[in-house]
Amino acid sequence: MAVALIQGASKGLGLQFSKVLTARADVAKVIATSRGAENEAVLLDIQKQFPNKLVLINVDITKEDNIKRIVPLITEKSGGKLDLILNCSAILHPLGKGETSLRDVSFEGLRSTFETNTIGPLLTAKYFSPLLLKSSGLFGNQSEKKHSGILVNMTAKVSSISDNQIGGWYSYRLSKTALNMATKNLSIELGRGKSKVICVAMHPGTVDTDLSRPYHKGVPADKLFSTEKSVNFLMTIIDNLSVEDTGKCIGWDGNIIPY
Amino acid sequence: MAVALIQGASKGLGLQFSKVLTARADVAKVIATSRGAENEAVLLDIQKQFPNKLVLINVDITKEDNIKRIVPLITEKSGGKLDLILNCSAILHPLGKGETSLRDVSFEGLRSTFETNTIGPLLTAKYFSPLLLKSSGLFGNQSEKKHSGILVNMTAKVSSISDNQIGGWYSYRLSKTALNMATKNLSIELGRGKSKVICVAMHPGTVDTDLSRPYHKGVPADKLFSTEKSVNFLMTIIDNLSVEDTGKCIGWDGNIIPY
Repeated sequence: MAVALIQGASKGLGLQFSKVLTARADVAKVIATSRGAENEAVLLDIQKQFPNKLVLINVDITKEDNIKRIVPLITEKSGGKLDLILNCSAILHPLGKGETSLRDVSFEGLRSTFETNTIGPLLTAKYFSPLLLKSSGLFGNQSEKKHSGILVNMTAKVSSISDNQIGGWYSYRLSKTALNMATKNLSIELGRGKSKVICVAMHPGTVDTDLSRPYHKGVPADKLFSTEKSVNFLMTIIDNLSVEDTGKCIGWDGNIIPY
Repeated sequence: MAVALIQGASKGLGLQFSKVLTARADVAKVIATSRGAENEAVLLDIQKQFPNKLVLINVDITKEDNIKRIVPLITEKSGGKLDLILNCSAILHPLGKGETSLRDVSFEGLRSTFETNTIGPLLTAKYFSPLLLKSSGLFGNQSEKKHSGILVNMTAKVSSISDNQIGGWYSYRLSKTALNMATKNLSIELGRGKSKVICVAMHPGTVDTDLSRPYHKGVPADKLFSTEKSVNFLMTIIDNLSVEDTGKCIGWDGNIIPY
């Protein structure tokens, strides 16, 4: 039975992934982490329904010691293997508003966005990829080249340098572009041995979450997804991933997003 | 007569650019900055030769207040315009060694490399791009679409996600990939108005500098450039840049590097 770790589980896509995965019959355990996961009302509600299935753990991924500290607990709770890690933590900018011009760019905005969107997910991969290597590959679609666990870094289409037409959103764009490079590097390092972890970056579409809500005015209704709809699209793709997909940036519609 | 600002001027490529540009007859003023530029022996030697041409200014680009503080001085010394900014500051990793695997990845390594390689250059663009917009385009090759100043961010081929075959060097790769996105964003924002700044990322080749010296064993002699050779290649490209090149990542040989 499968075990999943959802990092950044208290809101938006991470929360919806936690709901969906906890309810799945083929999943034995979901470990949901965030700074305040243990006290998050919606997560506690899901836990009431599935008391033996959902584990909530507080962790601040912008502090390496904090991540390191929970390794023994997650190793125990997961039974020593993880089949799926979803890195969902993300901010648009610490002030909640993407930069529209250089005037809005600041050291603090950049630093803090890199820490949450890039460094935290990469450190999560550092400390928990050993558990992914122990997976027998219960998520994804096994091909001839067998895979073990799957690592998904949530990125966004605005991370694509070649697709960038309008600029702005400096902190968010730069942090997600760097996360794409991290994903590629991870796919190489964790794909070398006999046990191969599939590492992908995924674009969820434009989703109705706190992160992007201030920017939905111009988005046509059929292009603005609920978290339910986006997570359904993404889970279908995850359930069909194979080793051949590793290192790629994949959209909700299955299209490959160029760097 | 042209005025250039070289950020990260005390070593490697930045130092060589300072030498070459100060010696050029079509350059009136070179402003060379680094944390310790005012006390850097080689820069002081060049200044002795060209006392009215080379201005040395100390600035720590990982501190936004520090950059902000020198804006009036540089505005005065430059005569209110800059024709060229070269962002040359870079570290491989604060410990001097690129990560060979996830084991070596650390919060501090990532944070510090992003600050020097990505955030500092972008903040330099924030504070000094108004002076680039004042340039009449003395560097580069004027095309029908006239340009004003030129901003060059020194990147590296290992910043290319699609070209990444061997992984490793997490901090350096991620920081330079993010710098490429910053360059693209800057090319859009500074190319919108009547006055257009050309913004490019450039790959200098494998150059014999402190940054990469521990990694030169496997590099064939004809692929390992002296700083003199690399800067000659890069200056030839800079002297031929036009608005059509903006937003691109260009190698020492003129080839476009894919993202």
